[in-house]
Formats: sequence, structure tokens, C-alpha cells
Amino acid sequence: MKTELDTLMQQRSLDALLVSGGTHENPCMYYLSNGAKVGASTIAIKQRGHDPVLIVVGMERDEAAKSGLQVVDRAKYKPSELLAAEAGDALRAHARLVQALCEDFGLSGNVGVYGRAEQGHTLALFADLAQRLPAIRFVGETTPTVFDRAQRTKSADEMARIRRAAAAAISVVGQTRELLASHRARDGVLVTAAGSPLTIGAVKREIRRWTFELELEDPEGVIFAIGRDAAVPHSHGEDAHPIELGRTIVFDYFPREAGGGYFFDFTRTWCVGHAPPEVERTHAEVHAAFDIAINSMFVGQACREPQRLVNEYFEKLGHPTSRSHPGTTNGYLHGLGHSLGLSVHEAIRLADVPGNDDKLEAGMVLTVEPGLYYPERGFGVRIEDFVYMNPDTGRPETIGEFDKQLVIPVRPG
Amino acid sequence: MKTELDTLMQQRSLDALLVSGGTHENPCMYYLSNGAKVGASTIAIKQRGHDPVLIVVGMERDEAAKSGLQVVDRAKYKPSELLAAEAGDALRAHARLVQALCEDFGLSGNVGVYGRAEQGHTLALFADLAQRLPAIRFVGETTPTVFDRAQRTKSADEMARIRRAAAAAISVVGQTRELLASHRARDGVLVTAAGSPLTIGAVKREIRRWTFELELEDPEGVIFAIGRDAAVPHSHGEDAHPIELGRTIVFDYFPREAGGGYFFDFTRTWCVGHAPPEVERTHAEVHAAFDIAINSMFVGQACREPQRLVNEYFEKLGHPTSRSHPGTTNGYLHGLGHSLGLSVHEAIRLADVPGNDDKLEAGMVLTVEPGLYYPERGFGVRIEDFVYMNPDTGRPETIGEFDKQLVIPVRPG
Repeated sequence: MKTELDTLMQQRSLDALLVSGGTHENPCMYYLSNGAKVGASTIAIKQRGHDPVLIVVGMERDEAAKSGLQVVDRAKYKPSELLAAEAGDALRAHARLVQALCEDFGLSGNVGVYGRAEQGHTLALFADLAQRLPAIRFVGETTPTVFDRAQRTKSADEMARIRRAAAAAISVVGQTRELLASHRARDGVLVTAAGSPLTIGAVKREIRRWTFELELEDPEGVIFAIGRDAAVPHSHGEDAHPIELGRTIVFDYFPREAGGGYFFDFTRTWCVGHAPPEVERTHAEVHAAFDIAINSMFVGQACREPQRLVNEYFEKLGHPTSRSHPGTTNGYLHGLGHSLGLSVHEAIRLADVPGNDDKLEAGMVLTVEPGLYYPERGFGVRIEDFVYMNPDTGRPETIGEFDKQLVIPVRPG
Repeated sequence: MKTELDTLMQQRSLDALLVSGGTHENPCMYYLSNGAKVGASTIAIKQRGHDPVLIVVGMERDEAAKSGLQVVDRAKYKPSELLAAEAGDALRAHARLVQALCEDFGLSGNVGVYGRAEQGHTLALFADLAQRLPAIRFVGETTPTVFDRAQRTKSADEMARIRRAAAAAISVVGQTRELLASHRARDGVLVTAAGSPLTIGAVKREIRRWTFELELEDPEGVIFAIGRDAAVPHSHGEDAHPIELGRTIVFDYFPREAGGGYFFDFTRTWCVGHAPPEVERTHAEVHAAFDIAINSMFVGQACREPQRLVNEYFEKLGHPTSRSHPGTTNGYLHGLGHSLGLSVHEAIRLADVPGNDDKLEAGMVLTVEPGLYYPERGFGVRIEDFVYMNPDTGRPETIGEFDKQLVIPVRPG
């Protein structure tokens, strides 16, 4: 939680945090600025033991003030004079502005560096700053950074937003299933009232519409993939494909609050009309793996353990896994789950991989998403729920309940 | 244009480009991968004289293939073995993977580094790589990078997409004006059929709906700000505010193609019912400044010149400008325009600032957006068109025509 930042800084001997860039698609800035709508020139400075300060262009001062933080107009550091003094060299002028800021705030010691930026600019800027500010050591923290650590557990306010987003998202999932169920089947595909095949593209368009109506957004799209595409976990699906009966549909939906904010992440696998026996069996196996994973999760448990158990279970059934067959494109081939929040993937991984020493903590939100994929056999199955490590029970609480039924019954045409 | 990349690389003695990260909100990767939906682990390598190659996680291979480029599964470099060999140190494992890639592709010499990433990770990664790969000099290019230079002019395919997006966006602007005009006025505000005031929030919601319907998205929101808020250029507007008659509304609309793609950017200032004389006069002055700017633009013209002329014009009328009064929050206080494309702000600036030696070139797309802002007097005016430097005429062509009328007439309630 954000209240841990000072302690985390102390543990890592960080005297200050320097965060750059706008709020949009920049989780550290969003987190620190409480989601204020500030642009790419923004810098936030947080000194240990002090509240963050936002330095913004004057014309963003109203939006910046919504952060509740102290706001400084960057005009104070005379950026146009710096640009003139550096004969128009934007990088050096930028470095001088950051230098002036650091001096103004009296920064010294270890200063952690955060925020998404073009890599080339980052390298050039900090090479220059290292020369200008010998009393500061700019620290390039890697995952898990202090932000990763703070963000791993959610506050009551964050959970309230996440629960609202989850309820809206589950409503979209339900509407999607109803849409499929409301169509008639003819010649092995779903058809519209006009008699033409219902396509993946048409379904996705309705999903996007409901996403919008319910104050969500899907910045990275939605996975709604059928048959062989469903067997390639990150295939988004082909718009022109009809909804064929008896073929697996993987519907992976990961929207966030409209206008930027917290993500939800959820997957169901459906077969319209009926499911072939091998799909039914595979779905039951993935469902069982899901239960094994959930039942193994409690506060204090190693984050590696649920995936170790799932690997073991799938391997006993004869499925290849990324443990038994590294690089496999068949069987169970991705991590079991991940934490999320302002990014769809945050730093905690339910993955049985070297170096993963994290333990489940109260207040984490995580996906649990086993799957089995057989592209040559034309099907894939994934089941994903979104859980909160409930502080009261110490156990995972499902956020956004939805049944795990495979088959969606339809009427003949 | 993208076809210039090899020449630009040669001019800058770059032997290869190393681009990291997914397509989403990462313009260099989008540009190089032709918009293929690839995730955060992606790396693209472009050697001079060769087509780019995409290195992706296996489960994204189908989406990656849509780039039309050669695709390599990163499993080839055995990431899990690297992680085990590095005892779970994710940064060192990542560095070893990049090292293996660079060796596999036979990279040496100057390798430019691109793509948006967390700054801390960038610093740590390239510090490590510099040790591992002494034959490579990783170059942190700053603006204008080779991508900035290539992207400054648009191809026929890009222009076709931009024109489609512009037509849709202009339709949203027209619908918004009709929405306002369709309401009745009562007690100085617009009211709905139910008799309650029409609010900024309600109008923005309709704008978002039309944005969605017309296959656009507004990732960074929309500015629809009234009165004093309209005088703070980047205030987004307050949802609860009613639409008051006779107050300036600044409507700055900068959507892009749905699912990621090319941006459009456009602003009109409106007064509902009537405009006070000083607003009418100011609007006429901004309109005149706009014409001065457009008339000064031709292929070969300095990018500084239009703003120099606008500064001169406004200052003659007695308005403060950021030239005459650096850091002013009154008068004309921002750049005149900017290029755009996959980002809403690209590298070319119509700004009269030191070091801006760019000239207008055929194929550029730019905004032209003079404005005057008087927060204490409670109004702001901005007029923004989107222009294409037409190769046939050598002059700016307006993309998305819309009249610049200030007053929206309404019926009494």
C-alpha cells in the first residue's frame, strides 16, 4: 500500500523518488499523483518522510491540483531560458531543468528513478545528469521496485474501485453469453435474425459497446478466439470467423476503469450447442487444476506453490507443461497467474520459477488462470478468476463471481 | 516515411535498431511491427539494409505474424534456463537473453535503443549489457531520433487511415454542436427535456458514445471546458458544470483509431446563445492569428516562422505572449502547433524556440492552434485545425473541414 513507501525507501536506502511522465499509461505517476490528469512533462518528487510534490506545466495546474498534492509550476525553473542558454539542445535543457529541481529540493544521496519513457532518452538524460549532480546517485531499480512492493497490496479505496469495475465487467460477460444463447444455430454456426452467420467481429463489437456503457475501457483489446485460435493463448481472434458450434471459444476480458485506473481480468471457455468429448474432458481437467490452485492459496503460502501443484497434476494426466517441455506450444504453457492493478500485469507471479520467493499476502489481488492448449487438435481451454487475498479469512475471495459452465445451449434454427 | 529508416541509420552511423516492448502505447514498436498486437516482452531488431525481425513469446506468434515480418519465438533463447542459471535474477536473465539475441543476429557497432520502458529498468539493463557486449555501443538517441525523423512525413497508407479517422472525428464534432443547439435555454443555462440543466458531464458522455460508435477511441480523454476552465488550456472541464449561455466552451478533441493507431486533433471554441463583446473580439483575433499562421505555411518554410508571426500579431494587439512574458498564464501561452501520428504529439513543433531548425516538408501532418486565455476574466479561446502539407500544392490542406463559427444559436425555453 502507498503508506508503505517511506518504509520501503528506508529499507532500500533511497532518499528520494524521481518519477517522470504523464498519468496516462504510466502507473507510477498515476499511483503517486492519485490519478490527476497531467501530461508528459510532469515530474514528481517524493522525499522520504514527505508527501510527493508535482511539477507541471502551468496550463495543467487545475488538473494537477486534483491530486491533493503540492503543485509547482515548472515555469519557476525558466525552461525557455534554459533552452536558449543551451542553444536549443533539448536534452541538455531538460537535464538542466532536472538539475535545478534537484537542487531546489535539496536532493542528495540515492534517488530512485521511475516512470515510463523512451529508452534512448532515459539513457542520454541520466548519463548527462550523473555529470551534473555528483552528490546524487540515480538508482535504476528493477522489479520489484518500491512501487512494485507498495502496489502489491491494495487499500480499501483501491478495493472499492476494483469491486465496482469487476461487477461491471461480470455484467459484460453475462451479456455476452446471453447474446450467443439468443442466436439460433443453422448448418453448424450461429446465425442472426437476418440469416447470416454471427461473426467474432460482431460479438466483439457488442462487447466493446457494453464495455463503454458500463464505464469501462479495454485499452489492449479483448481476446475472443475460437477453435485453433483459442489454442494460441494470446491470439485475439479473427473478426470474420463465424461462431461454430462445438468449438472452444476462449473469452479473456481484461478491461479497466474508463479514463485510466484499475484493471480486472477474467477468462471463460465456452462451446456453443455442444462440446466434443475431448474438449469436455480437457475443460474438466482445467477446472480441477483451477480448484487445486485456489485450494492451495492462503496468506503465507509461497507464490510458487500453486503452479507447482498444477504442473504436477497436468503432468500426471500426460499433458506437456512448460516445466516438463520448456518452450512447448502444447499443453500448459504459461504462468498460473499474476497480480494486477493499474497495470494488467503487476510484479507478483504465481509462477514456479527460479528466484520467485514471494509469499501470498493479505490484500493482494491476483489472477488464477490454468489452461491447456492443443493447436493441432484445434482447441484451447482457459479458466481464469480474479481473487483478493482477504485479510479476514486469509484465503482467496473471488471478485466477480461467474459460473464455469462450458456449454452454452442454443435452439436449432 | 518508414522507407527512409535505412538512410537515416546510415546518416547517424547506426548499424542496428533495438526496439523493446509491446505495441500498445509504444509508437516505435507499433511503427516497426505494422501495428501487430504483441506484448511487453517483444523485441524488434532492425539491421541496416534488412527488414525488422520480431522476437515474441510463442503464444503471441499468430498476432506477430500479422506484421508481415519474420517472427522468432523467444523460446529459442531458453529464457527459463537463463533465469535458472542466474538463480532467479530477472534483470540478469533478461540481459543474457538480449545478449544471446545480439550475438545470434551478429550485431556490433552502434545500436540505437528505442521503446517505452520503466526508466529504472532501462538504466539497469543497459549498464549490465555494456559489460556483456563490449563490441556494441548502445546509443541513447534523443529527439529527433531516427523514428522521429521517419515518422515526420506520412505515407499514402498512413494518410488514408488519418483521413478516415478525421472524417469520423469531424462527424462527432458536428453531432456535439447539434446536441447543444437542440437544447432549450432557461435561466441562463441549457436545459434537458426534463427541465434539468445540461451538464458538461452529460455532453462528454455523448461525445464518448459517438467516439465509440465511429470506431475511434479517446485514450487521453477530451477537453470540454467552460468559462474560467476554458482559460486553462489543459483543464478537461468539470462534469457537474451546467452549459451556461454566453460563456466560452473550449472543445479540444484528440481521438485516434480504435484499438491503437493514428491520432486526429481539433479544437473549436463555442458560446451558446450569444457571445459577450470581448469574447467576440478575442475570437476574431484568434481567427485572424490562425489565418496568419496558415497563410505563412509552405513547403520549405521554417517551422518557427508561423509562431513568430502570431506572437508579433498578438503582441501588437496588446496581448501578453510566452515570448514577451515567459511563464505567463494570460494571453497566448503555448506552442502554435505540433506534428502528430501514432502519438498525439510528435517531434516537429511550430514553435519559435531556440534550436528549432526544422522546415515544413511535404507529407507532414500538423496542428495549427493559436489561443488566447484570460482566467481572471473567465474565458479562453482556441481554434485548432489539422493540416497536411500537401505534396502537390506545397501548401497546408485542412484535413477535416469544419466552420469556425463562435455562437451556437439556441431557442428560448
